[in-house]
Amino acid sequence: MRPSVDTWSAFLTIARMAGVGIVTPQTMMVADSSDPLILESGREFSPVRVQFETYGSLNAAASNAILLLHAFSGDAHAAGRHSADDRHPGWWDTMVGPGRSFDTDRFFVICSNVIGGCQGTTGPGDTDPETGEPYGLGFPVVTIEDMVRVQRRLVERLGIRRLHAVAGGSMGGMQALQWAVSEPDAVDRIIVLASTPRPSAQAIAFNAVGRNAIMSDERWNGGNYYGREAPARGLAIARMVGHITYLSDESMHEKFGRRLQERNSFEFDFSDQFEVESYLEYKGGTFVDRFDANSYIYLSKAIDYFDLAGKYGSLESAFGKSQNKFLVVSYTSDWLYPSYQSKEVVVSLMRLQRDVTYTELDCPFGHDSFLLETDRQTPLIGSFLEDTDGPG
Amino acid sequence: MRPSVDTWSAFLTIARMAGVGIVTPQTMMVADSSDPLILESGREFSPVRVQFETYGSLNAAASNAILLLHAFSGDAHAAGRHSADDRHPGWWDTMVGPGRSFDTDRFFVICSNVIGGCQGTTGPGDTDPETGEPYGLGFPVVTIEDMVRVQRRLVERLGIRRLHAVAGGSMGGMQALQWAVSEPDAVDRIIVLASTPRPSAQAIAFNAVGRNAIMSDERWNGGNYYGREAPARGLAIARMVGHITYLSDESMHEKFGRRLQERNSFEFDFSDQFEVESYLEYKGGTFVDRFDANSYIYLSKAIDYFDLAGKYGSLESAFGKSQNKFLVVSYTSDWLYPSYQSKEVVVSLMRLQRDVTYTELDCPFGHDSFLLETDRQTPLIGSFLEDTDGPG
Repeated sequence: MRPSVDTWSAFLTIARMAGVGIVTPQTMMVADSSDPLILESGREFSPVRVQFETYGSLNAAASNAILLLHAFSGDAHAAGRHSADDRHPGWWDTMVGPGRSFDTDRFFVICSNVIGGCQGTTGPGDTDPETGEPYGLGFPVVTIEDMVRVQRRLVERLGIRRLHAVAGGSMGGMQALQWAVSEPDAVDRIIVLASTPRPSAQAIAFNAVGRNAIMSDERWNGGNYYGREAPARGLAIARMVGHITYLSDESMHEKFGRRLQERNSFEFDFSDQFEVESYLEYKGGTFVDRFDANSYIYLSKAIDYFDLAGKYGSLESAFGKSQNKFLVVSYTSDWLYPSYQSKEVVVSLMRLQRDVTYTELDCPFGHDSFLLETDRQTPLIGSFLEDTDGPG
Repeated sequence: MRPSVDTWSAFLTIARMAGVGIVTPQTMMVADSSDPLILESGREFSPVRVQFETYGSLNAAASNAILLLHAFSGDAHAAGRHSADDRHPGWWDTMVGPGRSFDTDRFFVICSNVIGGCQGTTGPGDTDPETGEPYGLGFPVVTIEDMVRVQRRLVERLGIRRLHAVAGGSMGGMQALQWAVSEPDAVDRIIVLASTPRPSAQAIAFNAVGRNAIMSDERWNGGNYYGREAPARGLAIARMVGHITYLSDESMHEKFGRRLQERNSFEFDFSDQFEVESYLEYKGGTFVDRFDANSYIYLSKAIDYFDLAGKYGSLESAFGKSQNKFLVVSYTSDWLYPSYQSKEVVVSLMRLQRDVTYTELDCPFGHDSFLLETDRQTPLIGSFLEDTDGPG
């Protein structure tokens, strides 16, 4: 029996709900000794390998590509699963897929791991061909602009001269802003979520504590620990600090309150643990299995150095050449990169009479809101991507 | 030539500006095996030695005594200097002295180090008479209520049956609240600054990171490090985390902005340090010279466990027997113990129709405001201490 239109429609709905399905990471060399990457510091660097994933199909005109830019501890795995029994989908799975914010029925969506990272793109844990040893702290200092330079090479080699959009949250939002500043003609739309043109002294301070925790772990050994025991304790503490800054007072209260782990009342010994303590220790402990301590140092430094107004004199100067369309979203409970910092970007763009949409979402999840606020972000991003100038 | 009245008056003014002058710490045994301290856990504990300082003179009726209650990293040294060339006055020196908030021309002011601490009162670094070794983690778990029990003994042994007031900020404010709850008849007025009846999950989380940093330092060695190298790195990181929570985004921005240490521009190496990083490292480094890592664990646990509503069913039940007068002050930029937590205390006291004065000071210095806002606190506290029922 041929399925009815209704059955077929229901099947399609379920397929859409399933997202992008099984995905396979890819790698590409984007710089070698004959064509090295020129870093912002002026240093020539090669080789550079990029790990990336793609979802959906590039159209014939190569005009429907969107580049997603991951946050500090993210990676190229934005959506789907790596195998049928993979329990953890990509970090923005709720936002990427057929019918989702980044609609893979219409767009060719790319996400790549940043330079300096530890998830397949060249970083401090890779082997330095000149020494045959891991780079460690011999890896060059990289910046948000360097991440964008690598991404630009990847996109060009994929045959895309102009992206329909770049989009990212947190450190990903910094890269999105940097695309508008240094590659304004290679992209149409810029989506910046939960981000900042310049982290505050407080945000730098939290990153500094994380770096100190790593460097104070004797196993760190000046960055030379590959092939030996990693500085797991220091990295776990760094992650615990970071994790607190990603949540809000309110969301931690909702999630844990003051409940004790496995006990109902105090027994007056140090096994009395609050649930929030166990949760942070768990989060710190699992992080060390997937992240490299030196990458923590390099990427957190790249974040701290990011300062568009400082580098270009003012935000207006930074965005002077950009004719892009902007969508900027901040979140009331984000105290790591508070709304006033997004508003500095928006005010500068308005002074330049640029096309900018700004929304502050009132939600309790803190900085991590951009990963969680799927329902409210979907129509916002969907309509921003789909206006009449879109790829159709 | 005899000095004129004007000269004499000017001399007195200068003497008052000089504060309480040189002070000498004192110690007193408040519990021994024949009269042990009964801890909140039910455990009997002795001996207990208390370190304290006093400023001003007790009147004949012993009715003019005020007990100051120190915060987490504070000590008994609230005012004055220990010698003529002592560069650092006590932690509340601007508030204690002739003509100051706690006017030593009128009041006999006492400040003692808490049990579990490391500044002269019995704590985990002291020798356990049963083993002849330092207690370490063999020291009993102590609570805010235990601190008050020790203070009550000290005050009684000083011949004071009823205090004119107790006053403290942060952890000191918790002790002040606990005095109202468990010793309401032994004190008249309660001054609570920058405090909370119950730290939030977020505040617990920051303390948990600090404890983890200490315990992850191999030198900590399960708390047995006395006579050997102390876990200085872990303690320094704990202090760095704590210090961030004591300041505000705004005050860090005012103090450091994004200035680099000893450089004007980035050189793209890891010696590029922001001033805020160097400051935190300095603060962490000096802290380890004056504080004991095990005391950090014990006192931060005492803070985390403090929960008046949880323990007594509700704040109204907790304050049910208290007929004290209350002054509660919170600070707009304090995000460690935000104003809403002070307001919970105030609302409960108002429901009980108690005499409560509440002020929220609009100031940028974060949690540390109670140590810094001398000018605005002085008239507030002065008038609260001096109404017609006062000791005159």
